[in-house]
Amino acid sequence: MIPRFNIQPVAKSLDQKLKDRIDQKTKPIGALGVLESIAFKIGRIQQTETPTLNHPHIVVFAGDHGIAKAGVSAYPQEVTHQMVLNFLNNGAAINVLTRQHNIELLVVDAGVNHDFANTTNESFLSRKVGMGTRNYLKEPAMTEEELAEAIALGAHITATIHRKGCNIIGFGEMGIGNTSSASLIMSTLLNLPLKLCVGSGTGLDKTGVQQKRKLLQSVLDTYEVEKSNPMVVMQTFGGFELAMMLGAFLRAGELGMTILVDGFIASSVFICAQQTAPAISDYALFTHCSKEAGHHLMLKELAQPHILNLDLRLGEGTGCALVYPIIESAVRFLNEMASFESANVSTKDS
Amino acid sequence: MIPRFNIQPVAKSLDQKLKDRIDQKTKPIGALGVLESIAFKIGRIQQTETPTLNHPHIVVFAGDHGIAKAGVSAYPQEVTHQMVLNFLNNGAAINVLTRQHNIELLVVDAGVNHDFANTTNESFLSRKVGMGTRNYLKEPAMTEEELAEAIALGAHITATIHRKGCNIIGFGEMGIGNTSSASLIMSTLLNLPLKLCVGSGTGLDKTGVQQKRKLLQSVLDTYEVEKSNPMVVMQTFGGFELAMMLGAFLRAGELGMTILVDGFIASSVFICAQQTAPAISDYALFTHCSKEAGHHLMLKELAQPHILNLDLRLGEGTGCALVYPIIESAVRFLNEMASFESANVSTKDS
Repeated sequence: MIPRFNIQPVAKSLDQKLKDRIDQKTKPIGALGVLESIAFKIGRIQQTETPTLNHPHIVVFAGDHGIAKAGVSAYPQEVTHQMVLNFLNNGAAINVLTRQHNIELLVVDAGVNHDFANTTNESFLSRKVGMGTRNYLKEPAMTEEELAEAIALGAHITATIHRKGCNIIGFGEMGIGNTSSASLIMSTLLNLPLKLCVGSGTGLDKTGVQQKRKLLQSVLDTYEVEKSNPMVVMQTFGGFELAMMLGAFLRAGELGMTILVDGFIASSVFICAQQTAPAISDYALFTHCSKEAGHHLMLKELAQPHILNLDLRLGEGTGCALVYPIIESAVRFLNEMASFESANVSTKDS
Repeated sequence: MIPRFNIQPVAKSLDQKLKDRIDQKTKPIGALGVLESIAFKIGRIQQTETPTLNHPHIVVFAGDHGIAKAGVSAYPQEVTHQMVLNFLNNGAAINVLTRQHNIELLVVDAGVNHDFANTTNESFLSRKVGMGTRNYLKEPAMTEEELAEAIALGAHITATIHRKGCNIIGFGEMGIGNTSSASLIMSTLLNLPLKLCVGSGTGLDKTGVQQKRKLLQSVLDTYEVEKSNPMVVMQTFGGFELAMMLGAFLRAGELGMTILVDGFIASSVFICAQQTAPAISDYALFTHCSKEAGHHLMLKELAQPHILNLDLRLGEGTGCALVYPIIESAVRFLNEMASFESANVSTKDS
């Protein structure tokens, strides 16, 4: 049974007070731009004029994909487990960035095709649903039971982190082949032509992208998935790391946490979450628009603003980590800046 | 006599090594996007594959403008000195942001129409060139002697900070009326129609912007300034805080520091600096594109990429402070990330 989540829309009762508080800070109205929107949104989520960011976490879900052996990626499948080991040895980009910002990092084996039995590391969680998904060229990526298990495990991970006092969480992924899943999810759930949804991933050349498009089109042509059912779409085209992220997103929304959405792949999972429980958007900040073809359109379709445009295309939650200090700046200006009155500064009307 | 500066173009001898080092990190080539360009540029400036950011500083120059009383701003002139006091009481946005990132903040009275004689604060420097500039509706904003003095003082401030071990510096400004200076400088030095260079500043409404445009057009029509001479343009339309920033920019370039360029106003001063010593661009990072009309075009004309798009329009150096952690991330990934070889991760070709 796929778990169900009860996500409440945020209350709007505090909106005017929040707006007034932002406008009374010693700056022209609106002069802090996107920071003002972020502060407003987090104030709304936390239902306070003095929000705080507590114990920020980034969880990186890793999983392998049956499709990876069909030549959809510039890298071989073993890079997934090699990168997990790199995460655990603090050598990857996400390690550098979470260390910089004192964000706690958890790395989850959601279904990597590798035995991590000898791995002991306090940042590592073994939640393996399988040794990688099935190849959706031939059959759905996972069974309904596997989907349900992955979602439940992801939800449980978020809940455990929340109990530690965390109120802001971002999710990253590692899985060679998973931009293909994201493209198929995007095309199906947003009802967009596949060609607008497929990009070069980790760095395919033009010919590689054309082959990937052709292959994924044949996948789409094979299945008659229920386009209105995000869970079936995830089961058919997803990955264990993506399904686990879906559960993690949904529980985070249910718990009223501020959710950081990373790049192309995380955003595709967010689409599943949003089509499952639309109110989750009230809790989400889209950290950046990546360079992966399709992400810009995806964000446009979601009608959600994003914060950074740094041409990233790395995943791992790196966008969540990079944007974190800017989100912190938003919360800090709301809490720490003087008002026109307290600082004796003349206002526009005076 | 206006001081002269000798800015050397950065050497390119290390370029290949820097590129290789960036490409060997455990990520697809180019996947860290803009961060890779930043790391490359700072490595070049510092001529090392392992650059560091030492004792970051932001200097906010404040000054008043004769034009302020002609209705070019939504705020009265006294806001300049009130905001200086707000800076010194740690209540402004730039205080919040520099505190967050451990950036040392200096506030300089370059020519505010207020007596700060009783002000003792270790973050405050009194370098008053005058009690505000003249009104360029009637005569040039400053004399050549005042311009020279302001430039020399700005250069001296940078040099003093550099001697303390600082190698990365950003400049902000506070001065009611100074978007008018920036618009006039932009229009003159970039040879662009004034209407493309004038925006709402601190928040003029549509009628206000139209009046400002009309007024500034009449200013442009009054003077026959030498369009190819940035010093004459600064003298005619500038401000004491802007002239001081110009000297500070130029000395920072001469000393090989990494220079953070803030928003519309700081960028207009940078144009003066660049037309004086083109090699200064080798040392500059453009921190953001602001919401002030004209800034986007200005950055395009400078042919310089920028890092953030947060719809800021506050000045004070807030863009420099907000972008700082991202610049730090760039330097950190270059120094701290594992390579494919050191982490035993398969490469694209394996």
